[in-house]
Amino acid sequence: MSIRELVVLGTSSQVPTRYRAHNGLWLTWDGDGLLVDPGEGTQRQMLLAGLRASSIRHICVTHFHGDHCLGLAGVTQRISLDRVPHEVPVHFPASGQVYFERLRHASIFDDHARLSPRPIRESGTFVGPSYTLEARRLDHGVDAFGYRVVEPDGWTMVPERLAARGVRGPAVGRLLREGAVVADGGEVRIEEVAIHRKGQVVAFVMDTRLCDAAFELAAGADLLVCESTYLATEAVEARDHGHLTADQAGRIASEAGARSLVLTHFSQRYPLDAPFEHEARRRFDGPVVAARDLMRVPVPPRRTA
Amino acid sequence: MSIRELVVLGTSSQVPTRYRAHNGLWLTWDGDGLLVDPGEGTQRQMLLAGLRASSIRHICVTHFHGDHCLGLAGVTQRISLDRVPHEVPVHFPASGQVYFERLRHASIFDDHARLSPRPIRESGTFVGPSYTLEARRLDHGVDAFGYRVVEPDGWTMVPERLAARGVRGPAVGRLLREGAVVADGGEVRIEEVAIHRKGQVVAFVMDTRLCDAAFELAAGADLLVCESTYLATEAVEARDHGHLTADQAGRIASEAGARSLVLTHFSQRYPLDAPFEHEARRRFDGPVVAARDLMRVPVPPRRTA
Repeated sequence: MSIRELVVLGTSSQVPTRYRAHNGLWLTWDGDGLLVDPGEGTQRQMLLAGLRASSIRHICVTHFHGDHCLGLAGVTQRISLDRVPHEVPVHFPASGQVYFERLRHASIFDDHARLSPRPIRESGTFVGPSYTLEARRLDHGVDAFGYRVVEPDGWTMVPERLAARGVRGPAVGRLLREGAVVADGGEVRIEEVAIHRKGQVVAFVMDTRLCDAAFELAAGADLLVCESTYLATEAVEARDHGHLTADQAGRIASEAGARSLVLTHFSQRYPLDAPFEHEARRRFDGPVVAARDLMRVPVPPRRTA
Repeated sequence: MSIRELVVLGTSSQVPTRYRAHNGLWLTWDGDGLLVDPGEGTQRQMLLAGLRASSIRHICVTHFHGDHCLGLAGVTQRISLDRVPHEVPVHFPASGQVYFERLRHASIFDDHARLSPRPIRESGTFVGPSYTLEARRLDHGVDAFGYRVVEPDGWTMVPERLAARGVRGPAVGRLLREGAVVADGGEVRIEEVAIHRKGQVVAFVMDTRLCDAAFELAAGADLLVCESTYLATEAVEARDHGHLTADQAGRIASEAGARSLVLTHFSQRYPLDAPFEHEARRRFDGPVVAARDLMRVPVPPRRTA
């Protein structure tokens, strides 16, 4: 399975509404699921989205406000109930360890969950088989980190070039691993027979006021998921509460060179989401969508460079 | 407002399903709301049912399995956010105090909630303005209590009889309070001018295997809410896991002299709920309904005796 897509579980800030569940995000990355900020009800939203606990490979908590973590209790118990055999690293701000522990052991259950706590102090990089996960400190009043999923750059082999240089069989794999190989006509370097392929990047900039880290997380992202709790008319309130406006989200996407933008985490005061898209589009030329619960958004195909 | 009705928030056991939220029950009792066993997602189910956190007067947790308590975290934070001014007693098995505390302080929030923990050891009675709340130990493997809301018996005055005996004005209130009053023609006792009115009773028999306390809680209840996780074909499994079948729920309603029965807390293995009703009706003559999320069930009008 090489599906890479965002699955939106919940899109409200602070409290759920009739139309929006508590915040929750899921990134399907080939066979892996990365669960980001499970708000209350995430286990049911996963079910409605057709996502299984056994697919969870990482859990990333940006911070310990309830709409970003209360679902951890139910998700943990579902992981346990389903006897998920693998270890699931849970990344979270180190200062919130006590909340992690409370949610991890929130009620009585027959505990088979293999959660592996990964408290983050200043920043962090976690290397996975086909991506790295980077955390960077945001500015939200309480300790908060954004996350960035980065696929290493790679190469797309051009069969005609390989054939022309006589590279075949196991030599192809060696060329990929080592960057050069000796074939019939002498040394072949990978850039002679392959096209450089930029790895895909997905960034999660959740609760924060405008800060450098937001731009750094979003840098060159194929898909940027960015909170936009407020519209620009409430810019002062946004800053005071450590949040972004849709205008600022658009600015981050644009200045950081992101390719597409998903807005989410809307204050319940706004009855419609179209103004969020409208506002961000004035800043950012790429595709913009205001997330709705259970929406799926593909990660744009890799760029060739 | 003299509405007395059950509002069903969630009806699944253990895990939510596509069709059923995690367990959750609400009793509207005139202006008061009694929240029983808030499973995960209760704050949103309340919203969908049009119930406000400010209406919560008591929270009753039967036991600390996740489907009966995980919603406490979100409900607490909603009570806080809405600045509910009154104290909310939370009743729960004393041995689960640690879980209460974890859910009470599950994440970072600006805490204005006035929850008053009321751990129960063996049983308990809590007197409210227009009802008492009784707790009785059930048999579920982990400490568990059922609850019973009891309105004191009272009197319905018969205006013609009052007029005939010359009881009027403030004497009516005194008669109600003191049981007798001296009027124009001498002493008048209340039973001479009023009809005895049995108070309404609503019982919550949640997770338990068959036990005496289930019958005691249900005794004479106008409305009995009873778990029926299983059908009778799984009676052995039900007993082993500390649960009831629909057949047993029907038996409890019948033998305890309940007037109406609401079944809930269904195992996700059963695709349909009609067999639960069918099974209970073979035991119990009164109205039986298998609960669905957001269903409202009126408490039957008082009986006169």
